[in-house]
Amino acid sequence: MGPGTVCEHFQRAAELIGRRWNVLIVRVLQGGPARYTELREGLPQISDAMLSERLKELEGADIVRRDVAPSTPVRISYQLTDRGRDLARVMDRLGAWAERWADERLVSA
Amino acid sequence: MGPGTVCEHFQRAAELIGRRWNVLIVRVLQGGPARYTELREGLPQISDAMLSERLKELEGADIVRRDVAPSTPVRISYQLTDRGRDLARVMDRLGAWAERWADERLVSA
Repeated sequence: MGPGTVCEHFQRAAELIGRRWNVLIVRVLQGGPARYTELREGLPQISDAMLSERLKELEGADIVRRDVAPSTPVRISYQLTDRGRDLARVMDRLGAWAERWADERLVSA
Repeated sequence: MGPGTVCEHFQRAAELIGRRWNVLIVRVLQGGPARYTELREGLPQISDAMLSERLKELEGADIVRRDVAPSTPVRISYQLTDRGRDLARVMDRLGAWAERWADERLVSA
């Protein structure tokens, strides 16, 4: 990537992180695979429609994988892909940045 | 920050990074302070209105500082704050992530 350019993948990742709920979903899945209902419980304020939409988006970006276990009834669970786990680590750094400078902000405010 | 919560500062940073042009502006300013016209040249596809809007937003978030030199005519320049430089390092990591997995994507596609 030369100066003044942002690769398409980067911009897509940045937009993905910027979209509300995605970071929270990834954070919940950092704890391990979760079923839809578990995700729902971990994110009480998100609507069903929104959670479904976000999960599809994260699947499409190869951040989250949806597994269907052939049981009766089928058990659907979600987990981070390798790519998603790696992105989660970048998000952790963004979190650390936010905490570092939140304090600073309080001091200077 | 407990599980299932994202601090407000974090969410704001994520949204900031996700908004088109902001990463590019920060990347240009990583090279050092720049005047408005220099930023404009570094980002040929951005409109004047958009660049002004983004710079105001980045100033408001304490990522970019606007300096006015009391010369005739006044010289206005922009540079990253300490906070902004620190955020730029997180963006570098996101860029590294994007590059790493862009290759992977090509292999598996």
